[in-house]
Amino acid sequence: MLRVVSKGATSLSDQTPFVLIDVTRMDRNILVMAEIAGRNVVSLRPHVKTHKIPAIARKQVEVGATGITVAKVSEAEIMADGGLDDIFIAYPVETEAKIRRAILLNEQVRLILGVDSLEGARMLSSVARGEGIAVEVRLEVDTGLKRTGVRPQEAVELAGEISKLGNLDLTGIYTHRGVVLENEVMTLDLEKAGYQEGELMVSLANQMRESGIKLDDVSLGSTPTAKYAAEVEGVTEIRPGTYVFYDRMQAKLGACSLEDCATRVLATVVSRPTSGLATIDGRSKTFATDVQPGKEPLGLEGFGRIIGHPRAVLERLTEEHGMLALDEADDLGVGDTVEIVPNHVCSTVNLHDDVYLHSADDSIQKVRVAARGRVW
Amino acid sequence: MLRVVSKGATSLSDQTPFVLIDVTRMDRNILVMAEIAGRNVVSLRPHVKTHKIPAIARKQVEVGATGITVAKVSEAEIMADGGLDDIFIAYPVETEAKIRRAILLNEQVRLILGVDSLEGARMLSSVARGEGIAVEVRLEVDTGLKRTGVRPQEAVELAGEISKLGNLDLTGIYTHRGVVLENEVMTLDLEKAGYQEGELMVSLANQMRESGIKLDDVSLGSTPTAKYAAEVEGVTEIRPGTYVFYDRMQAKLGACSLEDCATRVLATVVSRPTSGLATIDGRSKTFATDVQPGKEPLGLEGFGRIIGHPRAVLERLTEEHGMLALDEADDLGVGDTVEIVPNHVCSTVNLHDDVYLHSADDSIQKVRVAARGRVW
Repeated sequence: MLRVVSKGATSLSDQTPFVLIDVTRMDRNILVMAEIAGRNVVSLRPHVKTHKIPAIARKQVEVGATGITVAKVSEAEIMADGGLDDIFIAYPVETEAKIRRAILLNEQVRLILGVDSLEGARMLSSVARGEGIAVEVRLEVDTGLKRTGVRPQEAVELAGEISKLGNLDLTGIYTHRGVVLENEVMTLDLEKAGYQEGELMVSLANQMRESGIKLDDVSLGSTPTAKYAAEVEGVTEIRPGTYVFYDRMQAKLGACSLEDCATRVLATVVSRPTSGLATIDGRSKTFATDVQPGKEPLGLEGFGRIIGHPRAVLERLTEEHGMLALDEADDLGVGDTVEIVPNHVCSTVNLHDDVYLHSADDSIQKVRVAARGRVW
Repeated sequence: MLRVVSKGATSLSDQTPFVLIDVTRMDRNILVMAEIAGRNVVSLRPHVKTHKIPAIARKQVEVGATGITVAKVSEAEIMADGGLDDIFIAYPVETEAKIRRAILLNEQVRLILGVDSLEGARMLSSVARGEGIAVEVRLEVDTGLKRTGVRPQEAVELAGEISKLGNLDLTGIYTHRGVVLENEVMTLDLEKAGYQEGELMVSLANQMRESGIKLDDVSLGSTPTAKYAAEVEGVTEIRPGTYVFYDRMQAKLGACSLEDCATRVLATVVSRPTSGLATIDGRSKTFATDVQPGKEPLGLEGFGRIIGHPRAVLERLTEEHGMLALDEADDLGVGDTVEIVPNHVCSTVNLHDDVYLHSADDSIQKVRVAARGRVW
């Protein structure tokens, strides 16, 4: 049983930097999203990219999730080994080795694969035929993020061609999330984005059904848009990920409050060279740098929110140093511990081999981020 | 024996994204820096943060490095276990647990610890006294980066106070690197930065010696400034890190050519949704995002340089997707492999559990990034 405090040194706070997860907050976040899904009679299939830990995925399923979402075959393998038995790889699986590994997994769990092109679907079909099995697939639609996914205007035709391929069972369509642009910049209007993406996807699914394709699932992602998308008649599933922990970006987006954020990074002041600067051991290998300060539309100040020091700004991160700009009156000194809500928790957790779960009884459990480093 | 090709699929290129290291280039980089140190009669103590692999550190020592530099006690432990026996932790080691772990290591290898404040030095002294040993320390000076390190104007006085503390043996001073500012923005004038930091450090060391402190080492860091700093009379050691692999940032800084870059990330095109966009499986969990496109003074275009596709730009990275803006005529298609020189190789390697060493005989060896994830 370990105790972490904000000042002075105990055995755990001596070992900064590390990620500490408040289990009470996490459990509440898991429950609230399950209730949103339940209320709207849609399935919940959380993306586990945020935590990458089978035990947390099992918690999500225990309180109502139908199954889980992953981005890679290797992550699916870790989750299957960890007892999860209904897994959607929401990513184009398009090289032969990856398809073969996925097919092996298909014998062990219910597996759904993403597809977004005819070439990709043909390769899947061909490998599945060789193995003499049918693979369940969903077609990805790009509703504005311009990453993967077929464009909406081409989706119905592509679905038709995929549905004719042998050894594939096209059961649904999916998207990550829609965007609302203003002067070509993404806005924070997530309510509008959620409804828009929902309506667009349902409309596409209906057009596909009218053309004779049997589709069950209309699946939409994204923590900040999920609760709006779930309300749209015809949407059958939501796939939020970040909600399990939430983070500073989600708070800024209005998807949660800072109080809902279950994850903090603990770091130690290693130097206070001037009155305006405290340098901490939380660095670019501790905090993800993908959500940069100042960048629109979020415009976050610094790389994280420092709890109890509202005027401190985590201005710079280099490989081994984090630079906290401080008010001169701030008495943070060498050896003091700070707690920081990171800008983007998913990519931050991904930097750590282990995280620490802090329970209501004050016990702390070290847990392996089992699917970290699984690259394909 | 595996073979990696740029088009089509073999067993390894099927397993993207991954980091591939050209051993011939790496060996040449290691040798050239050893020659620079030899020519200037300074010690070479490479920072191993870039590769975090004991076997590569041993190569560096075999061709002339005196010892190695690390940033954390836990990294020092991994390197000591890997056969390295002269290790400088160039970072303030200031919590009791970390000091105790460092002291244990002190019995096994020659260990030097960084210190940059009187509080930190007192804690070190006190723990060392409790153990009845003396610890070799170097004082860090901030020559412009504003991270850790005492300011030059306070360095001589602090060195005097540290030298009076029991159980500490102050044998040198060190800095990472100097900067040359223009309108408060760091310039790319690395020659000037290298000479300036060298002269400043030698001047401080001489003042300390005049005040009665016996100092052996004047140690300066940094791949881009090392060859200039090494020329300054009185400098005794250089500690470059990135030079082992080099990267796009170093090429832009003029420290190397793109041809010298030994590390490439291999990724696969997973979607070509429009003529102007190819989406790859190299993502923000594959490429570090700490060196952002467009940011001054580097002003790099995109997150990496795509070999053989000079007009392609890796414009965006999200957690699971990399977005390559393409010329319409570019025929990259689903399943094709691309090779990319990352902006910042140190933080990129840090995202990977393993890297692949590609030797001149075309063999490929998978190697564990053993000190990755060692956080303290």
